[in-house]
Amino acid sequence: MRRPDGTHAAVGDDAGWVVLDEADAQTLASSPRWRTRAEAALRHPARTEIAPDAFENPVPRPGKILCCGLNYREHILETGRAVPEFPTLFAKFADTLTGPTDDIAVRGAPKLDWEAELAVVVGAEIRRADSETARSAILGYTVANDVSLRDWQQRTLQWLQGKAFDATTPIGPWVVTADELDPRDGLRIRCAVNDQVMQEGDTADLVFDAADLLAYVSQFTVLRPGDLVLTGTPGGVALGMPDPRWLRDGDVLTTTIDGIGALRNVIRVAA
Amino acid sequence: MRRPDGTHAAVGDDAGWVVLDEADAQTLASSPRWRTRAEAALRHPARTEIAPDAFENPVPRPGKILCCGLNYREHILETGRAVPEFPTLFAKFADTLTGPTDDIAVRGAPKLDWEAELAVVVGAEIRRADSETARSAILGYTVANDVSLRDWQQRTLQWLQGKAFDATTPIGPWVVTADELDPRDGLRIRCAVNDQVMQEGDTADLVFDAADLLAYVSQFTVLRPGDLVLTGTPGGVALGMPDPRWLRDGDVLTTTIDGIGALRNVIRVAA
Repeated sequence: MRRPDGTHAAVGDDAGWVVLDEADAQTLASSPRWRTRAEAALRHPARTEIAPDAFENPVPRPGKILCCGLNYREHILETGRAVPEFPTLFAKFADTLTGPTDDIAVRGAPKLDWEAELAVVVGAEIRRADSETARSAILGYTVANDVSLRDWQQRTLQWLQGKAFDATTPIGPWVVTADELDPRDGLRIRCAVNDQVMQEGDTADLVFDAADLLAYVSQFTVLRPGDLVLTGTPGGVALGMPDPRWLRDGDVLTTTIDGIGALRNVIRVAA
Repeated sequence: MRRPDGTHAAVGDDAGWVVLDEADAQTLASSPRWRTRAEAALRHPARTEIAPDAFENPVPRPGKILCCGLNYREHILETGRAVPEFPTLFAKFADTLTGPTDDIAVRGAPKLDWEAELAVVVGAEIRRADSETARSAILGYTVANDVSLRDWQQRTLQWLQGKAFDATTPIGPWVVTADELDPRDGLRIRCAVNDQVMQEGDTADLVFDAADLLAYVSQFTVLRPGDLVLTGTPGGVALGMPDPRWLRDGDVLTTTIDGIGALRNVIRVAA
């Protein structure tokens, strides 16, 4: 969260928030003793109220961000495709991320689209992990929107350039630790533009779940605390419409996962 | 370069090398006064001999690595494709890199292929730069081989997973600064497996040259000192052969750009 003296990590429970000295959740979670420290903080009864717009991206400097395409079973089947054998993966940069209430600013007249996604935060180093080891390396879950510039994405075969515009992927508002919930049990995920719900899905419908994806990625590269894996988006993106309704200047993009939280970002399109 | 007390940056001219305190060329070049410092070091007549296998990756921690596919005009035309309007871009991670004489170790029986490439090292921060500004932000040039696991690359539409195995992209052995040479003038680039030359091209044949690529990338994301852009590979990869000759355990992969230097890496394939 943001305060006049800079940003701070905060830990919370049903009673409210306790603000810590660390700059953000990623810094806190990079310490091997983060859980002891968080639990100790929550044993004190005092709580701080944090205004919704004071939350920042809790994971601001991931060393790696991997994103999965085509991962909601229902959406894959409705588009007539077969359920894939392997996850389709691409990368983003730390610079691609922005905060849970920040404006998303782009220039020109891009085909700007939404993609509500469950994001997995890595909590322990893994390499060539099986699914069980990968699951135990999950710090927790947060909400992301893989906002995409479809015109750039479709210029070539590789999607990266439409997915890696600086400060276009909002993330947050906090990380719910893996002991609190399991997306396999089914969390409703939604994306709304202004007041209209555009996407609605269920994380139980993921072909490759959080642990599957971490295990798969770890076959080729090491994952470390603070790394992020975005798990793909359900049906309902503008790209899939016969007459796409691209995001416009002033649109309010709301991305929600029940049991985790919500992002609220205003779109700014400059000439 | 590697010494018993750790790694060091070194600056060189026709007379030989001067070893500095900084850990590597990236650290040196991240200081705004690197040029003054390098020039001062080279005014002293004393030189150090550095054994070929003591050179390490000079840019070990790039914040971003972007790679261009399909960029040698002759190769594009011979495959029957049209010259592209936009560069095809994908990413690698800092963990993907390895040193100029390190073994490249993989497991299983991958379709392991070579891709000799000119790599551009960013020397100054740029965002939304034109080609001229981008050119002035080039620190220099080095040699890379975008060694690719084609079976993983071809599992899905996105190439990343076949291009991002840890420690499979050798880079080095040093950075030739941009005042010393211009790849537009034509540098011969070659890849040999054992003693057989497999690829041979000319950097004057690039569709998108170094400055074009930096300028293009900077339209969507900031580039900073130490970031890398790999410019694509000429014809002659195994993938293009009717009966591909994949890399095997014990193969010696030599990647050379005239006027820059050479990488020599032994392939290790474990069960």
